[in-house]
Amino acid sequence: MPCHNQSLNNVTTGQEHNLTKHVRFAASSNSSSVPVAPSSEAVDDVNKQRLNGNCPNGGGLGPDVLNLGPQLKLLPLNSQILELQTIIRDKTTSRGDFVFCADRLIRLVVEEGLNQLPYSECTVTTPTGHMYEGVKFERGNCGVSIMRSGEAMEQGLRDCCRSIRIGKILIQSDEETQEAKVYYAKFPPDINRRKVLLMYPILSTGNTVIEAVQVLIEHGLQPKHIILLSLFSTPHGAKAILQEFPEITLLTTELHPVAPTHFGQKYFGTE
Amino acid sequence: MPCHNQSLNNVTTGQEHNLTKHVRFAASSNSSSVPVAPSSEAVDDVNKQRLNGNCPNGGGLGPDVLNLGPQLKLLPLNSQILELQTIIRDKTTSRGDFVFCADRLIRLVVEEGLNQLPYSECTVTTPTGHMYEGVKFERGNCGVSIMRSGEAMEQGLRDCCRSIRIGKILIQSDEETQEAKVYYAKFPPDINRRKVLLMYPILSTGNTVIEAVQVLIEHGLQPKHIILLSLFSTPHGAKAILQEFPEITLLTTELHPVAPTHFGQKYFGTE
Amino acid sequence: MPCHNQSLNNVTTGQEHNLTKHVRFAASSNSSSVPVAPSSEAVDDVNKQRLNGNCPNGGGLGPDVLNLGPQLKLLPLNSQILELQTIIRDKTTSRGDFVFCADRLIRLVVEEGLNQLPYSECTVTTPTGHMYEGVKFERGNCGVSIMRSGEAMEQGLRDCCRSIRIGKILIQSDEETQEAKVYYAKFPPDINRRKVLLMYPILSTGNTVIEAVQVLIEHGLQPKHIILLSLFSTPHGAKAILQEFPEITLLTTELHPVAPTHFGQKYFGTE
Amino acid sequence: MPCHNQSLNNVTTGQEHNLTKHVRFAASSNSSSVPVAPSSEAVDDVNKQRLNGNCPNGGGLGPDVLNLGPQLKLLPLNSQILELQTIIRDKTTSRGDFVFCADRLIRLVVEEGLNQLPYSECTVTTPTGHMYEGVKFERGNCGVSIMRSGEAMEQGLRDCCRSIRIGKILIQSDEETQEAKVYYAKFPPDINRRKVLLMYPILSTGNTVIEAVQVLIEHGLQPKHIILLSLFSTPHGAKAILQEFPEITLLTTELHPVAPTHFGQKYFGTE
Repeated sequence: MPCHNQSLNNVTTGQEHNLTKHVRFAASSNSSSVPVAPSSEAVDDVNKQRLNGNCPNGGGLGPDVLNLGPQLKLLPLNSQILELQTIIRDKTTSRGDFVFCADRLIRLVVEEGLNQLPYSECTVTTPTGHMYEGVKFERGNCGVSIMRSGEAMEQGLRDCCRSIRIGKILIQSDEETQEAKVYYAKFPPDINRRKVLLMYPILSTGNTVIEAVQVLIEHGLQPKHIILLSLFSTPHGAKAILQEFPEITLLTTELHPVAPTHFGQKYFGTE
Repeated sequence: MPCHNQSLNNVTTGQEHNLTKHVRFAASSNSSSVPVAPSSEAVDDVNKQRLNGNCPNGGGLGPDVLNLGPQLKLLPLNSQILELQTIIRDKTTSRGDFVFCADRLIRLVVEEGLNQLPYSECTVTTPTGHMYEGVKFERGNCGVSIMRSGEAMEQGLRDCCRSIRIGKILIQSDEETQEAKVYYAKFPPDINRRKVLLMYPILSTGNTVIEAVQVLIEHGLQPKHIILLSLFSTPHGAKAILQEFPEITLLTTELHPVAPTHFGQKYFGTE
Repeated sequence: MPCHNQSLNNVTTGQEHNLTKHVRFAASSNSSSVPVAPSSEAVDDVNKQRLNGNCPNGGGLGPDVLNLGPQLKLLPLNSQILELQTIIRDKTTSRGDFVFCADRLIRLVVEEGLNQLPYSECTVTTPTGHMYEGVKFERGNCGVSIMRSGEAMEQGLRDCCRSIRIGKILIQSDEETQEAKVYYAKFPPDINRRKVLLMYPILSTGNTVIEAVQVLIEHGLQPKHIILLSLFSTPHGAKAILQEFPEITLLTTELHPVAPTHFGQKYFGTE
Repeated sequence: MPCHNQSLNNVTTGQEHNLTKHVRFAASSNSSSVPVAPSSEAVDDVNKQRLNGNCPNGGGLGPDVLNLGPQLKLLPLNSQILELQTIIRDKTTSRGDFVFCADRLIRLVVEEGLNQLPYSECTVTTPTGHMYEGVKFERGNCGVSIMRSGEAMEQGLRDCCRSIRIGKILIQSDEETQEAKVYYAKFPPDINRRKVLLMYPILSTGNTVIEAVQVLIEHGLQPKHIILLSLFSTPHGAKAILQEFPEITLLTTELHPVAPTHFGQKYFGTE
């Protein structure tokens, strides 16, 4: 059975020094802790399995996920990210640790999201008079958070983009019709000319995001200018979003059928 | 001519979505800005060159660098990191922007440094009762900054490790003998039983770091328990350090003969 | 004519070292900058005027404001706070500076707000074995931000209370009836047993806050357990709120008829 | 016996809403916690005692302290600050809480220190076209931390002054002569034309600070341009510093014979 994101994400294939097992939901209730030397042997072994598309203890993702195409980006997995995911998943984690670790993972996702934005080559002069060929990113980006959990990602965005503009959308189910309905939307006025980092940490069914993208399109935005930043996604959710809007970029750190849907409530302490 | 870090760092070889040219010091004084679509074509092109060990406009690193072995880790390059490097190199950058961008790059190096530390597998239970196979890092780490520029990395370390212990070393040249001399050293008392994240942003000759490692060894630390976190290194500096202490891990974001030696003074405003 | 907050806030009367003129909206268009030595003479002069209830160049607040009672708390004014107020008011301030200064002022308001909460005396032992009579604050507080501008105060609250729970309310005018209507409300489940720091930076008419307090009361909260944190308030707004709910505590940094109503849009960049 | 800082600091005399007992070291070992309503009665009572120069359970400061003059500034005491002092004093506080609370207290001291700097009046225009009389602080300040504990205050200074320049001094006792000796000093080059916020959290004998001020004077700085930021001071230390340099401004949050000398080691985890 194929490991769930091996072929989605060539990004990770070379990270020999920090790979780890990628399929992490277990049927067994083994909770003992086994020290793992980050030796090249162990890693090579896992690496080889991933390169071959095999996962020893089951993946959970069907082959259809593997066909979602290049618009689905997985953050290169390493052991630190896996630890952050573990702490966020663990029901015994204190709120203080939860928020601290969530903030770290959010910053990493934001950095990777910024990395998807267009840039130009440029040459600068160093203090010692050397020319240095670098890049600079184009201006004209903004963030949009989807309430309420998406707001948890706003500070992480500010930590990486000091004074980026941040819009917001509130979508809720109508009590009578159960339809997703937009209750609040506030964007930078020229949002149709910007690239948008759309923030929503947990993609479960994908319905809320689909509704939010629809609102952005109604404001003149082209889907290809949307980069969706999330922490966790179900394969189903990612598929639903990308089938509806094949041009948006979807970035996440883990694809798994069980999403940590308690995220927003635990982050804000409203559980 | 080989591109400077292609064979050092397989990590980056698969990052199709965000690769960029890796050899960035130019002979020409072309300062115009050319928009570059992050298209797969352009990237494939660069990628191919890097995979083949060719760099179109010169690398600057001799083949000896390529033999420094697995203890030299380069942060996977992407366009965001390249932008941060560019801003830090650029003599026209304001101090406010310099500090903000340096702090971002420092956090990324710290995250990758933490990733080098030993961890154990563990299984946790999620709020919905599922078992999740994750990892947890072992306790017993600490940071040590080498004054003065290494202190710029202390807050980044705290941002990722809330209450990590941080020691400090001051090494200066004796005015008479010109020998590197330890003027101050303060560590956690049990440092010999810890893994140490040694912080020094710019590796030029490597002499200061070599002296600092020597002090740590005198305090009972084994070199294999040292992870050296830096932002920029010369090939010469990296080589000098790793030849002296082949067991330490050296992490940096760029190897190039010209190091931004103004870093500490600009960061603290004492230039 | 009486100076606008002299008799509201005895807190400031003794701050000899940092007082400054308190009435700051001028009819003239004098924009020149006159160096002011923070000498005790100048300060004594202003101080004396304030103690006497006189303000040389007009106050703008009618005497009714002076009767709002002890539930209205003004942050002790000093020259730093006045500078922050100036930068926030100034239309030429960049967004980066605006956000930075707003965050500083918010933290000061939050610190003062926390100071309103109940505490107990306690005695602790120091590392050298001495007994120290101190205080500790009672647990069981939470924050509630009123969208959208109140959200700007959430991070400041976290900066002072690491893992405080934060609820949220969205109130908007119904498009047809123009009535204030609650669109969203999410609180910690046991909010009726907590003290609430209610966050809304600009009090203009007071209508939104009155609606929000009403919602909190419907959730079982007693008004006396609400501390309203704001940055700027009109006298009219403060009066409206305290007449409706005489038991809540209202904290602000300035009472003036002209409130900087652009705050939220400038903070989030949606102007 | 007079309460230790009542006549030093008129600043606090009006803070009716948040005063608390100011003399806090107890002879008894009463460690029970008694709820204290922050009622105006209790506060009035304490207030009255302080205004009368009486302290019910002993002060610990002789009358000589009361003659240190206006250059000694005590941060206006309130219950939050008292809580932070209590947590920092308490030997059972975890390092995480210690650092978090120290950082909060440091930010408050920094804000008050900035408040001592010279400013000019200015008039700005608001977005709605009103003129607003405010102030702006003069440029040309810098920070200088005295190693090692003074470094704990650098981030707090940055949190309030985004890109302030920060110099550093290392002073140690010579192993042979026991004399205080300067091992390292790095300042902004034009420090003689700047106002200096000198940072050192715990003033015990005052010797280290006296040595540091001497170094600054040798760099051309006038003592009247030095604002010493500290968290805790002994009366003896404050007196020694101000007798040596009567023109510097000394800011602290508490004067007491027992200073928490473990501060630096606990903050950095090198105890």
